[in-house]
Amino acid sequence: MAAITTTRFPTSLHSNSKGISKNRATISSTFRIRCSNAQSPVTLTFTNEPQPVFSSVKAFAPATVANLGPGFDFLGCAVDGIGDTVSIRVDPNVHPGEISISEISPNISKLSKNPLWNCAGIAAIEAMKMLGIRSVGLSLSLYKGLPLGSGLGSSAASAAAAAVAVNELFGKRLTVDDLVLASLKSEEKVSGYHADNVAPSIMGGFVLISNYEPLELLRLKFPSEKELFFVLVTPEFEAPTKKMRAALPLEIGMPHHVWNCSQAGALVASVLNGDVVGLGKALSSDKIVEPRRAPLIPGMDAVKKAAIEAGAFGCTISGAGPTAVAITDDEQKGHLIAKQMIQAFHKEGNLKASANVKQLDRVGARLISSDHL
Amino acid sequence: MAAITTTRFPTSLHSNSKGISKNRATISSTFRIRCSNAQSPVTLTFTNEPQPVFSSVKAFAPATVANLGPGFDFLGCAVDGIGDTVSIRVDPNVHPGEISISEISPNISKLSKNPLWNCAGIAAIEAMKMLGIRSVGLSLSLYKGLPLGSGLGSSAASAAAAAVAVNELFGKRLTVDDLVLASLKSEEKVSGYHADNVAPSIMGGFVLISNYEPLELLRLKFPSEKELFFVLVTPEFEAPTKKMRAALPLEIGMPHHVWNCSQAGALVASVLNGDVVGLGKALSSDKIVEPRRAPLIPGMDAVKKAAIEAGAFGCTISGAGPTAVAITDDEQKGHLIAKQMIQAFHKEGNLKASANVKQLDRVGARLISSDHL
Repeated sequence: MAAITTTRFPTSLHSNSKGISKNRATISSTFRIRCSNAQSPVTLTFTNEPQPVFSSVKAFAPATVANLGPGFDFLGCAVDGIGDTVSIRVDPNVHPGEISISEISPNISKLSKNPLWNCAGIAAIEAMKMLGIRSVGLSLSLYKGLPLGSGLGSSAASAAAAAVAVNELFGKRLTVDDLVLASLKSEEKVSGYHADNVAPSIMGGFVLISNYEPLELLRLKFPSEKELFFVLVTPEFEAPTKKMRAALPLEIGMPHHVWNCSQAGALVASVLNGDVVGLGKALSSDKIVEPRRAPLIPGMDAVKKAAIEAGAFGCTISGAGPTAVAITDDEQKGHLIAKQMIQAFHKEGNLKASANVKQLDRVGARLISSDHL
Repeated sequence: MAAITTTRFPTSLHSNSKGISKNRATISSTFRIRCSNAQSPVTLTFTNEPQPVFSSVKAFAPATVANLGPGFDFLGCAVDGIGDTVSIRVDPNVHPGEISISEISPNISKLSKNPLWNCAGIAAIEAMKMLGIRSVGLSLSLYKGLPLGSGLGSSAASAAAAAVAVNELFGKRLTVDDLVLASLKSEEKVSGYHADNVAPSIMGGFVLISNYEPLELLRLKFPSEKELFFVLVTPEFEAPTKKMRAALPLEIGMPHHVWNCSQAGALVASVLNGDVVGLGKALSSDKIVEPRRAPLIPGMDAVKKAAIEAGAFGCTISGAGPTAVAITDDEQKGHLIAKQMIQAFHKEGNLKASANVKQLDRVGARLISSDHL
């Protein structure tokens, strides 16, 4: 690596340090120059700057269902088997401390290859900043498994996979909170400072965000012996997050506030008790957000009705839509429910739709392969 | 007993039947006349009308803390060792199917001895209606252990004790839901149709009311191995429920709604996980109700501050006040916290106050003595 001489660790690299939890390795503001070999160029290593432990890694982050009805803006959960994948490799052709995006697959014109304007890029840069990476350049490949703007946490999955990949490459020094904060930087640019997708995508299971300043995340453990399936039906329809947010009421009457609060409490209790029927009932009970958003998604009311009639325990809009999410405790039943929901989208909304029947993801974003140095 | 001849079970006795759960013994609308003894007067017994199994019973119902901050109007819990007691006895001098109040102790002028205008009386009458009691007259004695209008569920405890006493006297045919509905009839007249005091007073522990039509009650089990103490500090100050309710906002901005919902979720999770620190934090976090009510209770803000500074995990207004409730996991610490809270009421609110440091009541309203026939 090329010799670098500076006298201070650039403070700009610490721009996000306020929110970083204290229990990760402190990034020192001093550095030392080490001559590793008299013949080789002078190599600079910052005190505590982690070095890559792999030459490349690949990480997967699952899709997520945010809101879950009355859990609007503070609750989400991860869904197994669908998500985004990010590969990151040490790249001597990239300027040390920087990252470049080498590939996005499939090639989606909406997605920028400029890392400052790409969900995965932004989160990766944040993770690098947190780690204090200055002497290694990286290149990133993003494999989109999730459709954009579908309400399945597509941008969050890209960010989560990227943050986790960077962290794995450098020996896992960041905490879960750090990874969520790094990914939040990305969400902030795309859809607002909400962690209800990135937190469950990183942590798996159900996550309640109880505070942002400081970040406080509550894992809600769904009992391991219980079955829970999500029927995710995505119509071919664009429901931009901004438009869906603009549909929300600014003020909420006290009776509806109390109702939704009680249902949020019931939702949390159902998750912790593994009560899928109660979970479905609470999920279906939102009187504030869903009634405003459902009319913007053609056929949604009929889709919900069809899901319940087909035996789903509950149904609502996933995230900001247009995906409809229903829940059940049986995979086969899930497929039957999906069929009815697809038909309802077609019949009442004149929309084609596709379905996924997936289990709860209990793991969250993870390393799926690595190449040693 | 005197002979009674009617041809139909009066429909008025079924006025509350809509809300009664189906799993209790059905009260038949037919009746039969039975001559129990040729020498004695003709005795009427309705089909399925239960007969007393005791000559008298005494039941206790605990105090309750409703709201618990962000659990406003749908969450409450029971507090051990303080509450109201109701004795009920079969009284041949009372007209069959009716109840009379023979004693209220201590003698509180505000409390009517007309059972139609007394919390215990109303709930007892409802329980009798539900059971279809027509051939036995009862008399009731009420021992008030709780101060009125203190925010400790005083009226609810009277109602709960009365409903439970009637049910015990007749062999426990009513379900928990029935008992709550009977007590709700009383609450409706006194302070509004809210079950967040009567449900925990009857059921013990923490109870979430997730629906009223039909009534749905969720027991939130606080782990048995965990310690939880309530520091209840009651100032000599009247905070009428109606006035405290009038102070509430009619509309709530979306950010505050989301915040309180998330805290309600965190509160429920903390209860189920036995996380007393998290419970305290959530309890303290209400941004909607407490900020409007606290200024109406002199010194409340200072009392909350004093509680937290003395080591409480959280503090808020109990019910509609004026009692302040703080929580801790240690009884001794509880007494120290109480001392500081009393001082703060005195210093900042110019109010005398008294304290109770009590554990969670995990049992609810119960029979405490009975005399056999």
